[in-house]
Amino acid sequence: MATGESATPFGGHSRSDTARLEALSDGVIAVAITLLVLDLKVPHVGEESLWSALVGQWPSYAAYVTSFLVIGILWVNHHSIFRQIRYATRGLMLTNLTLLMLIVAIPFATSLVADYLTESGINAKVAMAAYNALALAIAVAMTVLWGYALRRPELLEPDVDVQAARRAFPRFSIGSTVYAVLILVSFLSALLALAGTFLVALYYAFEHLPKARPAEG
Amino acid sequence: MATGESATPFGGHSRSDTARLEALSDGVIAVAITLLVLDLKVPHVGEESLWSALVGQWPSYAAYVTSFLVIGILWVNHHSIFRQIRYATRGLMLTNLTLLMLIVAIPFATSLVADYLTESGINAKVAMAAYNALALAIAVAMTVLWGYALRRPELLEPDVDVQAARRAFPRFSIGSTVYAVLILVSFLSALLALAGTFLVALYYAFEHLPKARPAEG
Amino acid sequence: MATGESATPFGGHSRSDTARLEALSDGVIAVAITLLVLDLKVPHVGEESLWSALVGQWPSYAAYVTSFLVIGILWVNHHSIFRQIRYATRGLMLTNLTLLMLIVAIPFATSLVADYLTESGINAKVAMAAYNALALAIAVAMTVLWGYALRRPELLEPDVDVQAARRAFPRFSIGSTVYAVLILVSFLSALLALAGTFLVALYYAFEHLPKARPAEG
Amino acid sequence: MATGESATPFGGHSRSDTARLEALSDGVIAVAITLLVLDLKVPHVGEESLWSALVGQWPSYAAYVTSFLVIGILWVNHHSIFRQIRYATRGLMLTNLTLLMLIVAIPFATSLVADYLTESGINAKVAMAAYNALALAIAVAMTVLWGYALRRPELLEPDVDVQAARRAFPRFSIGSTVYAVLILVSFLSALLALAGTFLVALYYAFEHLPKARPAEG
Repeated sequence: MATGESATPFGGHSRSDTARLEALSDGVIAVAITLLVLDLKVPHVGEESLWSALVGQWPSYAAYVTSFLVIGILWVNHHSIFRQIRYATRGLMLTNLTLLMLIVAIPFATSLVADYLTESGINAKVAMAAYNALALAIAVAMTVLWGYALRRPELLEPDVDVQAARRAFPRFSIGSTVYAVLILVSFLSALLALAGTFLVALYYAFEHLPKARPAEG
Repeated sequence: MATGESATPFGGHSRSDTARLEALSDGVIAVAITLLVLDLKVPHVGEESLWSALVGQWPSYAAYVTSFLVIGILWVNHHSIFRQIRYATRGLMLTNLTLLMLIVAIPFATSLVADYLTESGINAKVAMAAYNALALAIAVAMTVLWGYALRRPELLEPDVDVQAARRAFPRFSIGSTVYAVLILVSFLSALLALAGTFLVALYYAFEHLPKARPAEG
Repeated sequence: MATGESATPFGGHSRSDTARLEALSDGVIAVAITLLVLDLKVPHVGEESLWSALVGQWPSYAAYVTSFLVIGILWVNHHSIFRQIRYATRGLMLTNLTLLMLIVAIPFATSLVADYLTESGINAKVAMAAYNALALAIAVAMTVLWGYALRRPELLEPDVDVQAARRAFPRFSIGSTVYAVLILVSFLSALLALAGTFLVALYYAFEHLPKARPAEG
Repeated sequence: MATGESATPFGGHSRSDTARLEALSDGVIAVAITLLVLDLKVPHVGEESLWSALVGQWPSYAAYVTSFLVIGILWVNHHSIFRQIRYATRGLMLTNLTLLMLIVAIPFATSLVADYLTESGINAKVAMAAYNALALAIAVAMTVLWGYALRRPELLEPDVDVQAARRAFPRFSIGSTVYAVLILVSFLSALLALAGTFLVALYYAFEHLPKARPAEG
């Protein structure tokens, strides 16, 4: 409240700040993941076969499934991080807003990939590289966010093992490099890069997260 | 929290995990059901009768009403299941994400049906079959989700009668077959299959759920 | 929970059912009111004046403002009703789903009015009549919902004065007739009917609701 | 509840009213900020360079980033205000609804700027002036909302220092004038005005808010 501003050492932000930050983040991520459906477009075939047209849309479905998984994993990671943060500062809020701004752009990048994946020239590669550049930016933003909080232990929940979290941080941050590699792969083969992006998300979903990422339990 | 990871036998996931899983699911389903309105398109008639054009859009309205009911029932079922689950594992989260991915595609399938329902050839049947194939996939995903939880009683709320729930499971899972039948009906008559889909949803809304499905109260 | 189904006299629905019903309703209404912005379309004017084009879009703005107010009032009313309902039955849930289905269609009807309001022929009147027919259907659905609950006092919160609420019901339900009148007015003048719809919403916002509608405080 | 209407001096509105008002506002703002992605459109280049086309879309990205930051700051401010308000009156609700109506229009204004920013004539300036006119209207609505609450201390949380808040009010309200200036700047240079809008939002994000705006902690 207005009068309590100086009561805490980091600008008077209370626990409820984080709760609201999470609520906004949840809302934004839920809408963004649902807007992916707008990238699935009804084909207009006239007298031709709708079935063939639907099958021919497989790049849209592949991009849809990949992005759904990517945003889903991001949501899990976002929660993993915020479960360990008790207080928000203005810097944290701005970093989180930047992160959300990048996540919200995923449906756009998905649409780009869906439209260009099967083009023969350089454009398919550019589309896929742009997608992974966005994924890289998101991974970096999340690393910055978590690193920001780790450097300010007074913002964390009291039961967070800060030393352990700091030891795990390099492994956490190194995850970003996979997207830098996938940008390069995009210029070899857009299709291969899309498969790689999907597999990386699947790997994070099953294996990596509970160990090297900020723990979830 | 980070340090509590080994405190519970299933990877440290706490009760709040399920709450958040439900919150994300609720948000996604609320957005998906609302995006159905984007399938209602303003007709552009010039000098002709707007009234006739609106009446001629009845396939859009029929598909809208059916899908609204379908997603509404799915929301009820999703809650019925999650009210009985206390802890989430990574496998459960991934199954739930797959389920959401399929539910979010319903506005696309609805648009497909609305655009092709009154076409004379095979395409109307293909559109309706695709719609029911999606419904079948959703029913199967929900059955997998509930079966997954039933095989891990340690994930369930303590007051769930696991034996009774397991006895009810075959009746629950058999519900999926109705959508397989509706795929076949689609190839007889798209209109009949749409009516069937609507009636099945209405039946679930009134009768079936409180008994054979995981109970709701 | 599964085992508690027979613990309450109305099918085992607990207080949390209503909370979730409200959460879904809130989510759906929040998305629907926000989707109204999609009816505002950027004019493409080439070398001509953007300013004139923006001013010429006033029917879009008028429809936007009216629908925003209408959905806002509906949200207030929906809460007024559900604050007095403790338990949900399947019938209540289905009635509420129907209500939401109609509310979600408002952006479509808004777009219809925005596109046809300034056409000279009958089409402007048909568009406005369709808008008010939807408003009438929503008012009727809300009346049915509240009447359903009033006939089942065991569903209500214990501090609701059922007798007083029943006495207020006729005045509540009579509100629907104003939309029937506005349908007729639409065929005299679409513009007059839009102004009427706006004024009715404004009247409800300021005066009527706290008295004859299910009370809010 | 219905029977408690006269229990409080301001129409029986309870604390939960504000909670719900905030929940609706949060939902609407989360959807509005996410709909900004719909202003990013996949370019269709045929055989030409997708990379050039994406780079050529920089006005869209600039408008996207600016509006994301603007809505994010608005969300923070909205919370800062409502954290200090305990009770809602109908006038407060209507003012808040007006505020939301203006915020929801931001994606439209963003699209306007993205489409016209690089046009050579007057239209770029008109688009940017319209954007800042909307920002001005939002700032005024927020000032009216906060002023409304400050004149009714019985609506505020008990620990709000009303005298201090009233002393800070002129500085708070003067913030609106920056948008009036930016409207004028728009007619000098649309690009300069966009940069100014971005910098103002960034300034509010870092500096201004915790002091002159209703305090946040």
